[in-house]
Amino acid sequence: MLETISSPAEWQRLPRTPGFSGKTVGLVPTMGALHKGHISLVNRCIKENDISVVSIFINPTQFNNSDDFSNYPKTIQKDRALLEEAGVQYLFLPTYNNLYKDGYVFKIIETDFSKKLCGIHRPGHFDGVLTVVMKLLNIIKPDRAYFGEKDFQQFILIKKMAEAFFIKTEIISCETVREDSGLACSSRNNLLKPGDKKIAPEFHHTLKQKIPTEETERKLEKFGFKVDYIKDLNERRFGAVSLSKIRLIDNVKQ
Amino acid sequence: MLETISSPAEWQRLPRTPGFSGKTVGLVPTMGALHKGHISLVNRCIKENDISVVSIFINPTQFNNSDDFSNYPKTIQKDRALLEEAGVQYLFLPTYNNLYKDGYVFKIIETDFSKKLCGIHRPGHFDGVLTVVMKLLNIIKPDRAYFGEKDFQQFILIKKMAEAFFIKTEIISCETVREDSGLACSSRNNLLKPGDKKIAPEFHHTLKQKIPTEETERKLEKFGFKVDYIKDLNERRFGAVSLSKIRLIDNVKQ
Repeated sequence: MLETISSPAEWQRLPRTPGFSGKTVGLVPTMGALHKGHISLVNRCIKENDISVVSIFINPTQFNNSDDFSNYPKTIQKDRALLEEAGVQYLFLPTYNNLYKDGYVFKIIETDFSKKLCGIHRPGHFDGVLTVVMKLLNIIKPDRAYFGEKDFQQFILIKKMAEAFFIKTEIISCETVREDSGLACSSRNNLLKPGDKKIAPEFHHTLKQKIPTEETERKLEKFGFKVDYIKDLNERRFGAVSLSKIRLIDNVKQ
Repeated sequence: MLETISSPAEWQRLPRTPGFSGKTVGLVPTMGALHKGHISLVNRCIKENDISVVSIFINPTQFNNSDDFSNYPKTIQKDRALLEEAGVQYLFLPTYNNLYKDGYVFKIIETDFSKKLCGIHRPGHFDGVLTVVMKLLNIIKPDRAYFGEKDFQQFILIKKMAEAFFIKTEIISCETVREDSGLACSSRNNLLKPGDKKIAPEFHHTLKQKIPTEETERKLEKFGFKVDYIKDLNERRFGAVSLSKIRLIDNVKQ
Protein backbone atom coordinates (compact mmCIF):
# COMPACT_ATOMS: atom_id res chain seq x y z
CA MET A 1 0.00 0.00 0.00
CA LEU A 2 1.57 3.26 -1.20
CA GLU A 3 1.37 6.06 1.36
CA THR A 4 1.87 9.65 0.25
CA ILE A 5 4.00 11.93 2.43
CA SER A 6 3.54 15.53 1.46
CA SER A 7 5.89 17.43 3.76
CA PRO A 8 9.28 16.99 5.45
CA ALA A 9 7.64 17.25 8.89
CA GLU A 10 5.28 14.40 8.07
CA TRP A 11 8.20 12.11 7.16
CA GLN A 12 10.20 13.17 10.19
CA ARG A 13 7.41 11.98 12.48
CA LEU A 14 7.47 8.47 10.97
CA PRO A 15 10.66 7.06 12.55
CA ARG A 16 8.99 7.44 15.93
CA THR A 17 6.03 5.27 14.85
CA PRO A 18 5.94 1.50 15.49
CA GLY A 19 7.53 -0.69 12.85
CA PHE A 20 10.19 1.80 11.79
CA SER A 21 12.93 1.17 14.29
CA GLY A 22 16.03 -0.62 13.01
CA LYS A 23 14.72 -0.85 9.45
CA THR A 24 16.81 0.20 6.47
CA VAL A 25 15.45 2.93 4.21
CA GLY A 26 16.16 3.33 0.50
CA LEU A 27 15.39 6.46 -1.54
CA VAL A 28 14.88 6.90 -5.27
CA PRO A 29 14.73 10.65 -6.03
CA THR A 30 12.84 11.39 -9.27
CA MET A 31 11.08 14.18 -11.12
CA GLY A 32 8.18 11.87 -11.97
CA ALA A 33 7.10 10.88 -15.50
CA LEU A 34 8.36 7.47 -14.47
CA HIS A 35 9.67 5.03 -17.07
CA LYS A 36 11.42 1.65 -17.15
CA GLY A 37 14.68 3.27 -16.01
CA HIS A 38 13.10 4.59 -12.83
CA ILE A 39 11.38 1.28 -12.20
CA SER A 40 14.71 -0.55 -12.37
CA LEU A 41 16.02 1.79 -9.63
CA VAL A 42 12.85 1.21 -7.62
CA ASN A 43 13.12 -2.57 -7.92
CA ARG A 44 16.72 -2.54 -6.73
CA CYS A 45 15.77 -0.21 -3.87
CA ILE A 46 12.97 -2.55 -2.76
CA LYS A 47 15.32 -5.54 -2.94
CA GLU A 48 18.02 -3.93 -0.81
CA ASN A 49 15.99 -2.06 1.84
CA ASP A 50 13.19 -2.74 4.31
CA ILE A 51 11.44 0.51 3.46
CA SER A 52 11.44 2.18 0.05
CA VAL A 53 10.71 5.84 -0.59
CA VAL A 54 10.35 7.41 -4.04
CA SER A 55 10.33 11.18 -4.20
CA ILE A 56 8.66 13.05 -7.05
CA PHE A 57 9.58 16.70 -7.28
CA ILE A 58 10.13 18.65 -10.48
CA ASN A 59 12.95 20.76 -9.11
CA PRO A 60 12.78 24.21 -10.70
CA THR A 61 16.29 25.23 -9.55
CA GLN A 62 17.94 22.67 -11.81
CA PHE A 63 16.25 23.94 -14.99
CA ASN A 64 18.31 26.59 -16.71
CA ASN A 65 15.60 26.91 -19.35
CA SER A 66 12.07 27.92 -18.30
CA ASP A 67 10.42 26.24 -21.34
CA ASP A 68 12.13 22.99 -20.43
CA PHE A 69 10.73 23.36 -16.89
CA SER A 70 7.18 24.18 -17.91
CA ASN A 71 7.12 21.45 -20.59
CA TYR A 72 8.52 18.76 -18.34
CA PRO A 73 6.06 15.85 -18.49
CA LYS A 74 3.74 15.38 -15.51
CA THR A 75 2.04 11.98 -15.15
CA ILE A 76 1.40 11.74 -11.42
CA GLN A 77 -1.60 9.35 -11.56
CA LYS A 78 0.28 6.93 -13.78
CA ASP A 79 3.40 7.32 -11.60
CA ARG A 80 1.43 6.49 -8.49
CA ALA A 81 0.01 3.35 -10.08
CA LEU A 82 3.49 2.22 -11.18
CA LEU A 83 4.91 2.71 -7.69
CA GLU A 84 1.99 0.93 -6.07
CA GLU A 85 2.42 -1.98 -8.47
CA ALA A 86 6.18 -2.14 -7.81
CA GLY A 87 5.54 -2.36 -4.05
CA VAL A 88 6.92 0.99 -2.91
CA GLN A 89 5.74 1.95 0.60
CA TYR A 90 6.15 5.73 0.52
CA LEU A 91 5.78 8.42 -2.12
CA PHE A 92 7.40 11.66 -0.97
CA LEU A 93 5.67 14.51 -2.77
CA PRO A 94 6.87 17.84 -1.37
CA THR A 95 5.96 21.31 -2.62
CA TYR A 96 8.42 24.02 -3.64
CA ASN A 97 7.69 25.89 -0.41
CA ASN A 98 8.37 22.75 1.63
CA LEU A 99 11.85 22.40 0.22
CA TYR A 100 12.82 26.00 -0.48
CA LYS A 101 11.61 28.05 2.48
CA ASP A 102 14.90 29.94 2.08
CA GLY A 103 13.95 30.94 -1.50
CA TYR A 104 17.06 29.10 -2.81
CA VAL A 105 19.51 31.57 -1.28
CA PHE A 106 21.44 28.58 0.14
CA LYS A 107 23.10 26.43 -2.53
CA ILE A 108 25.58 23.63 -2.82
CA ILE A 109 28.04 24.33 -5.59
CA GLU A 110 30.89 22.32 -7.03
CA THR A 111 33.66 24.20 -8.77
CA ASP A 112 35.40 21.53 -10.87
CA PHE A 113 33.62 18.58 -12.51
CA SER A 114 30.23 20.35 -12.47
CA LYS A 115 31.70 22.92 -14.84
CA LYS A 116 32.46 20.29 -17.49
CA LEU A 117 30.23 18.33 -19.94
CA CYS A 118 26.60 19.34 -19.25
CA GLY A 119 27.81 22.04 -16.86
CA ILE A 120 29.12 24.08 -19.78
CA HIS A 121 25.75 24.00 -21.52
CA ARG A 122 23.41 24.23 -18.54
CA PRO A 123 24.73 26.95 -16.20
CA GLY A 124 23.43 26.47 -12.66
CA HIS A 125 21.96 23.04 -13.42
CA PHE A 126 24.17 21.06 -11.05
CA ASP A 127 23.86 23.68 -8.27
CA GLY A 128 20.13 22.96 -8.34
CA VAL A 129 20.60 19.19 -8.49
CA LEU A 130 23.12 19.07 -5.63
CA THR A 131 21.07 21.43 -3.47
CA VAL A 132 17.81 19.50 -3.84
CA VAL A 133 19.51 16.13 -3.35
CA MET A 134 21.20 17.36 -0.17
CA LYS A 135 17.80 18.49 1.13
CA LEU A 136 16.17 15.17 0.24
CA LEU A 137 18.97 13.14 1.83
CA ASN A 138 18.77 15.22 5.01
CA ILE A 139 14.98 14.89 5.22
CA ILE A 140 14.63 11.18 4.40
CA LYS A 141 18.00 10.08 5.87
CA PRO A 142 18.07 6.95 3.73
CA ASP A 143 20.68 4.23 4.15
CA ARG A 144 20.92 4.04 0.36
CA ALA A 145 19.94 6.30 -2.54
CA TYR A 146 19.72 5.22 -6.18
CA PHE A 147 20.59 7.12 -9.35
CA GLY A 148 20.65 6.12 -13.03
CA GLU A 149 23.86 5.96 -15.04
CA LYS A 150 22.29 7.88 -17.91
CA ASP A 151 22.98 10.92 -15.73
CA PHE A 152 26.49 9.73 -14.98
CA GLN A 153 27.92 13.18 -14.29
CA GLN A 154 25.08 13.79 -11.84
CA PHE A 155 25.73 10.47 -10.11
CA ILE A 156 29.46 11.20 -9.67
CA LEU A 157 28.77 14.69 -8.34
CA ILE A 158 26.18 13.43 -5.84
CA LYS A 159 28.46 10.62 -4.68
CA LYS A 160 31.33 13.06 -4.12
CA MET A 161 29.05 15.59 -2.44
CA ALA A 162 27.94 12.94 0.05
CA GLU A 163 31.60 12.16 0.81
CA ALA A 164 32.61 15.83 1.08
CA PHE A 165 29.82 16.54 3.56
CA PHE A 166 30.06 13.28 5.53
CA ILE A 167 26.58 12.11 4.62
CA LYS A 168 26.19 8.46 5.59
CA THR A 169 23.83 7.51 2.76
CA GLU A 170 25.37 5.06 0.27
CA ILE A 171 25.04 6.57 -3.21
CA ILE A 172 24.36 3.78 -5.70
CA SER A 173 24.25 3.86 -9.50
CA CYS A 174 22.21 1.57 -11.73
CA GLU A 175 22.89 0.78 -15.35
CA THR A 176 21.05 2.81 -17.98
CA VAL A 177 17.85 1.16 -19.12
CA ARG A 178 17.18 1.49 -22.87
CA GLU A 179 14.19 1.23 -25.13
CA ASP A 180 14.36 -1.64 -27.65
CA SER A 181 15.77 0.83 -30.16
CA GLY A 182 18.78 1.49 -27.90
CA LEU A 183 17.59 4.98 -26.94
CA ALA A 184 18.22 5.59 -23.23
CA CYS A 185 14.93 5.81 -21.32
CA SER A 186 14.21 9.41 -20.38
CA SER A 187 11.10 11.34 -19.37
CA ARG A 188 11.96 13.79 -22.13
CA ASN A 189 11.60 11.06 -24.80
CA ASN A 190 7.82 11.58 -24.46
CA LEU A 191 8.29 15.09 -25.79
CA LEU A 192 9.96 14.05 -29.06
CA LYS A 193 8.01 14.64 -32.26
CA PRO A 194 7.21 11.41 -34.18
CA GLY A 195 9.88 12.13 -36.82
CA ASP A 196 12.51 12.92 -34.18
CA LYS A 197 11.61 9.80 -32.22
CA LYS A 198 12.68 7.75 -35.24
CA ILE A 199 16.05 9.51 -35.48
CA ALA A 200 16.73 9.55 -31.70
CA PRO A 201 18.14 5.96 -31.41
CA GLU A 202 20.97 6.95 -33.77
CA PHE A 203 22.38 8.97 -30.87
CA HIS A 204 23.26 5.85 -28.88
CA HIS A 205 24.30 3.85 -31.95
CA THR A 206 26.71 6.54 -33.04
CA LEU A 207 27.99 7.25 -29.50
CA LYS A 208 29.11 3.66 -29.00
CA GLN A 209 31.04 3.46 -32.26
CA LYS A 210 34.78 3.44 -31.66
CA ILE A 211 35.57 6.45 -33.82
CA PRO A 212 37.06 9.86 -32.94
CA THR A 213 34.65 12.24 -31.17
CA GLU A 214 34.86 14.71 -34.06
CA GLU A 215 33.58 12.01 -36.39
CA THR A 216 30.78 11.12 -33.98
CA GLU A 217 29.74 14.79 -33.96
CA ARG A 218 29.74 15.00 -37.75
CA LYS A 219 27.68 11.82 -38.07
CA LEU A 220 25.11 13.01 -35.52
CA GLU A 221 24.80 16.38 -37.23
CA LYS A 222 24.14 14.58 -40.51
CA PHE A 223 21.25 12.71 -38.83
CA GLY A 224 19.83 16.09 -37.81
CA PHE A 225 20.97 16.31 -34.17
CA LYS A 226 22.21 19.59 -32.74
CA VAL A 227 25.30 18.48 -30.80
CA ASP A 228 26.14 20.13 -27.44
CA TYR A 229 29.21 17.97 -26.89
CA ILE A 230 30.75 14.56 -27.44
CA LYS A 231 33.60 14.02 -25.01
CA ASP A 232 35.78 11.17 -23.72
CA LEU A 233 36.49 11.33 -19.99
CA ASN A 234 37.54 8.66 -17.46
CA GLU A 235 37.06 5.82 -19.93
CA ARG A 236 33.57 6.88 -20.86
CA ARG A 237 32.21 8.68 -23.88
CA PHE A 238 29.67 11.32 -22.93
CA GLY A 239 27.26 13.07 -25.26
CA ALA A 240 24.47 15.64 -25.24
CA VAL A 241 22.39 16.46 -28.29
CA SER A 242 19.01 17.89 -29.12
CA LEU A 243 16.24 17.31 -31.63
CA SER A 244 13.84 20.25 -32.09
CA LYS A 245 15.04 21.64 -28.73
CA ILE A 246 14.39 18.39 -26.83
CA ARG A 247 17.69 17.65 -25.13
CA LEU A 248 18.97 14.07 -24.81
CA ILE A 249 22.05 12.84 -22.96
CA ASP A 250 23.78 9.49 -22.89
CA ASN A 251 27.12 7.91 -22.08
CA VAL A 252 28.85 4.58 -22.76
CA LYS A 253 31.82 2.76 -21.27
CA GLN A 254 34.79 2.74 -23.62
CA MET B 1 38.81 13.73 31.43
CA LEU B 2 39.25 15.39 28.03
CA GLU B 3 39.59 12.90 25.19
CA THR B 4 41.02 14.02 21.84
CA ILE B 5 39.33 12.81 18.67
CA SER B 6 41.49 13.44 15.66
CA SER B 7 39.42 12.22 12.72
CA PRO B 8 35.78 12.01 11.63
CA ALA B 9 35.98 8.20 11.54
CA GLU B 10 37.13 8.10 15.16
CA TRP B 11 34.11 10.15 16.27
CA GLN B 12 31.73 8.11 14.15
CA ARG B 13 32.74 4.94 15.98
CA LEU B 14 31.87 6.44 19.37
CA PRO B 15 28.05 6.28 19.27
CA ARG B 16 28.35 2.52 19.09
CA THR B 17 30.37 2.38 22.33
CA PRO B 18 28.69 1.85 25.73
CA GLY B 19 27.50 4.95 27.52
CA PHE B 20 26.64 6.94 24.38
CA SER B 21 23.15 5.73 23.59
CA GLY B 22 20.32 8.17 24.24
CA LYS B 23 22.63 10.94 25.44
CA THR B 24 22.41 14.48 24.09
CA VAL B 25 25.47 15.93 22.40
CA GLY B 26 26.44 19.61 22.28
CA LEU B 27 29.08 21.10 19.97
CA VAL B 28 31.06 24.32 20.27
CA PRO B 29 32.95 24.86 17.00
CA THR B 30 36.05 27.06 17.48
CA MET B 31 39.31 28.00 15.81
CA GLY B 32 41.14 27.69 19.15
CA ALA B 33 42.98 30.51 20.95
CA LEU B 34 40.18 30.15 23.46
CA HIS B 35 39.08 33.11 25.58
CA LYS B 36 36.30 33.96 28.04
CA GLY B 37 33.78 34.18 25.18
CA HIS B 38 34.45 30.59 24.11
CA ILE B 39 34.34 29.41 27.70
CA SER B 40 30.89 30.94 28.17
CA LEU B 41 29.70 28.89 25.15
CA VAL B 42 31.39 25.80 26.58
CA ASN B 43 29.76 26.27 29.98
CA ARG B 44 26.31 26.60 28.45
CA CYS B 45 26.96 23.55 26.27
CA ILE B 46 27.97 21.49 29.32
CA LYS B 47 24.89 22.65 31.22
CA GLU B 48 22.47 21.73 28.43
CA ASN B 49 23.91 18.44 27.11
CA ASP B 50 25.08 15.09 28.43
CA ILE B 51 28.15 15.09 26.22
CA SER B 52 30.09 18.19 25.16
CA VAL B 53 32.39 18.39 22.16
CA VAL B 54 34.60 21.37 21.33
CA SER B 55 36.17 21.42 17.90
CA ILE B 56 39.37 23.33 17.21
CA PHE B 57 40.15 23.83 13.54
CA ILE B 58 41.65 26.93 11.99
CA ASN B 59 39.62 26.73 8.82
CA PRO B 60 41.71 28.05 5.91
CA THR B 61 38.75 28.36 3.53
CA GLN B 62 37.19 31.16 5.57
CA PHE B 63 40.30 33.37 5.47
CA ASN B 64 40.26 35.73 2.54
CA ASN B 65 43.66 37.05 3.60
CA SER B 66 46.62 34.67 3.86
CA ASP B 67 48.47 36.83 6.43
CA ASP B 68 45.40 36.76 8.65
CA PHE B 69 45.40 32.96 8.34
CA SER B 70 49.11 32.46 9.05
CA ASN B 71 49.07 34.95 11.95
CA TYR B 72 45.95 33.50 13.58
CA PRO B 73 46.94 32.74 17.20
CA LYS B 74 47.60 29.10 18.09
CA THR B 75 47.52 28.17 21.78
CA ILE B 76 46.57 24.50 21.73
CA GLN B 77 48.20 23.50 25.06
CA LYS B 78 46.48 26.34 26.88
CA ASP B 79 43.21 25.56 25.05
CA ARG B 80 43.37 21.95 26.13
CA ALA B 81 43.91 22.93 29.76
CA LEU B 82 40.95 25.34 29.64
CA LEU B 83 38.65 22.68 28.17
CA GLU B 84 39.79 20.08 30.68
CA GLU B 85 39.17 22.54 33.52
CA ALA B 86 35.71 23.41 32.16
CA GLY B 87 34.77 19.73 32.11
CA VAL B 88 34.51 19.12 28.35
CA GLN B 89 34.58 15.43 27.43
CA TYR B 90 35.76 15.57 23.81
CA LEU B 91 38.13 17.77 21.85
CA PHE B 92 37.62 17.28 18.10
CA LEU B 93 40.88 18.19 16.38
CA PRO B 94 40.66 17.29 12.69
CA THR B 95 43.28 17.99 10.03
CA TYR B 96 42.67 19.85 6.76
CA ASN B 97 42.83 16.56 4.87
CA ASN B 98 40.25 15.03 7.21
CA LEU B 99 37.72 17.72 6.43
CA TYR B 100 38.59 18.66 2.87
CA LYS B 101 39.31 15.41 1.02
CA ASP B 102 37.47 17.05 -1.89
CA GLY B 103 39.98 19.93 -1.96
CA TYR B 104 37.14 22.39 -1.26
CA VAL B 105 35.49 21.91 -4.64
CA PHE B 106 32.15 21.45 -2.83
CA LYS B 107 30.92 24.59 -1.09
CA ILE B 108 27.82 25.92 0.58
CA ILE B 109 27.07 29.42 -0.60
CA GLU B 110 24.40 31.92 0.38
CA THR B 111 23.49 34.57 -2.13
CA ASP B 112 21.75 37.25 -0.03
CA PHE B 113 22.68 38.10 3.57
CA SER B 114 26.21 36.68 3.21
CA LYS B 115 26.89 39.39 0.63
CA LYS B 116 26.18 42.18 3.13
CA LEU B 117 28.19 43.59 6.09
CA CYS B 118 31.38 41.49 6.44
CA GLY B 119 30.53 39.72 3.17
CA ILE B 120 31.34 42.88 1.22
CA HIS B 121 34.78 43.14 2.78
CA ARG B 122 35.72 39.47 3.03
CA PRO B 123 34.83 37.78 -0.28
CA GLY B 124 34.42 34.03 0.15
CA HIS B 125 34.56 34.22 3.95
CA PHE B 126 31.04 32.97 4.61
CA ASP B 127 31.31 30.24 1.95
CA GLY B 128 34.18 28.83 4.01
CA VAL B 129 32.33 29.25 7.31
CA LEU B 130 29.11 27.61 6.08
CA THR B 131 30.97 24.78 4.38
CA VAL B 132 33.07 23.86 7.42
CA VAL B 133 30.12 24.17 9.82
CA MET B 134 28.01 21.88 7.61
CA LYS B 135 30.83 19.32 7.66
CA LEU B 136 31.22 19.58 11.45
CA LEU B 137 27.46 19.28 12.04
CA ASN B 138 27.28 16.23 9.78
CA ILE B 139 30.24 14.54 11.46
CA ILE B 140 29.38 15.24 15.10
CA LYS B 141 25.56 15.25 14.65
CA PRO B 142 25.05 17.32 17.79
CA ASP B 143 21.63 18.04 19.27
CA ARG B 144 22.76 21.62 19.87
CA ALA B 145 25.56 23.82 18.55
CA TYR B 146 26.68 27.10 20.14
CA PHE B 147 27.88 30.32 18.51
CA GLY B 148 28.79 33.73 19.93
CA GLU B 149 26.80 36.86 19.15
CA LYS B 150 29.95 38.83 18.38
CA ASP B 151 29.76 37.04 15.03
CA PHE B 152 26.05 37.75 14.70
CA GLN B 153 25.97 37.61 10.90
CA GLN B 154 27.68 34.22 11.04
CA PHE B 155 25.18 32.96 13.63
CA ILE B 156 22.17 34.03 11.50
CA LEU B 157 23.65 32.45 8.37
CA ILE B 158 24.39 29.17 10.14
CA LYS B 159 20.92 29.06 11.70
CA LYS B 160 19.28 29.65 8.33
CA MET B 161 21.56 27.14 6.62
CA ALA B 162 20.51 24.48 9.12
CA GLU B 163 16.86 25.26 8.36
CA ALA B 164 17.37 25.33 4.58
CA PHE B 165 19.07 21.92 4.63
CA PHE B 166 16.83 20.27 7.25
CA ILE B 167 19.63 19.77 9.77
CA LYS B 168 18.15 18.81 13.11
CA THR B 169 20.80 20.49 15.28
CA GLU B 170 19.46 23.43 17.28
CA ILE B 171 21.65 26.44 16.51
CA ILE B 172 22.03 28.54 19.67
CA SER B 173 23.58 31.96 20.14
CA CYS B 174 25.19 33.26 23.33
CA GLU B 175 25.66 36.88 24.31
CA THR B 176 29.00 38.52 23.50
CA VAL B 177 31.46 38.34 26.38
CA ARG B 178 33.53 41.49 26.83
CA GLU B 179 36.79 42.40 28.50
CA ASP B 180 36.45 44.84 31.44
CA SER B 181 37.17 47.64 28.97
CA GLY B 182 34.06 46.76 26.94
CA LEU B 183 36.09 45.31 24.04
CA ALA B 184 34.43 42.15 22.72
CA CYS B 185 36.56 39.09 23.49
CA SER B 186 38.25 37.85 20.33
CA SER B 187 41.24 35.66 19.57
CA ARG B 188 42.52 38.48 17.40
CA ASN B 189 42.74 40.83 20.41
CA ASN B 190 46.00 39.02 21.29
CA LEU B 191 47.49 40.34 18.07
CA LEU B 192 46.88 44.04 18.85
CA LYS B 193 49.97 46.19 19.50
CA PRO B 194 50.05 47.70 23.03
CA GLY B 195 49.08 51.16 21.75
CA ASP B 196 46.21 49.77 19.65
CA LYS B 197 44.99 47.68 22.59
CA LYS B 198 44.39 50.95 24.48
CA ILE B 199 42.37 52.45 21.64
CA ALA B 200 40.40 49.24 20.83
CA PRO B 201 37.69 49.61 23.56
CA GLU B 202 36.58 52.88 21.92
CA PHE B 203 35.13 50.70 19.14
CA HIS B 204 32.40 49.30 21.39
CA HIS B 205 31.88 52.58 23.27
CA THR B 206 31.34 54.49 20.04
CA LEU B 207 29.23 51.73 18.45
CA LYS B 208 26.68 51.79 21.24
CA GLN B 209 26.19 55.58 21.16
CA LYS B 210 22.82 56.50 19.69
CA ILE B 211 24.16 58.73 16.93
CA PRO B 212 23.94 58.42 13.13
CA THR B 213 26.25 55.79 11.61
CA GLU B 214 28.15 58.48 9.66
CA GLU B 215 29.03 60.17 12.93
CA THR B 216 30.11 56.85 14.46
CA GLU B 217 32.43 56.34 11.48
CA ARG B 218 33.91 59.82 11.81
CA LYS B 219 34.51 59.37 15.54
CA LEU B 220 36.18 55.99 15.05
CA GLU B 221 38.43 57.35 12.31
CA LYS B 222 39.49 60.14 14.67
CA PHE B 223 40.54 57.51 17.21
CA GLY B 224 42.69 55.93 14.49
CA PHE B 225 40.47 53.04 13.37
CA LYS B 226 40.20 52.12 9.72
CA VAL B 227 36.44 51.59 9.30
CA ASP B 228 35.14 48.79 7.01
CA TYR B 229 31.50 49.56 7.78
CA ILE B 230 29.06 50.77 10.41
CA LYS B 231 25.56 49.69 9.51
CA ASP B 232 22.12 49.43 11.11
CA LEU B 233 20.17 46.29 10.21
CA ASN B 234 17.29 44.44 11.91
CA GLU B 235 17.48 46.57 15.05
CA ARG B 236 21.18 46.03 15.49
CA ARG B 237 24.16 48.23 14.77
CA PHE B 238 26.98 46.27 13.17
CA GLY B 239 30.58 47.41 12.79
CA ALA B 240 33.92 46.24 11.46
CA VAL B 241 37.13 48.19 11.92
CA SER B 242 40.85 47.57 11.97
CA LEU B 243 43.88 48.81 13.88
CA SER B 244 47.22 48.20 12.15
CA LYS B 245 45.51 45.58 9.96
CA ILE B 246 44.06 43.63 12.92
CA ARG B 247 40.36 43.40 12.15
CA LEU B 248 37.75 43.71 14.90
CA ILE B 249 33.98 43.25 14.62
CA ASP B 250 31.19 43.96 17.04
CA ASN B 251 27.43 44.57 17.13
CA VAL B 252 24.94 45.95 19.63
CA LYS B 253 21.16 45.81 19.99
CA GLN B 254 19.54 49.14 19.20
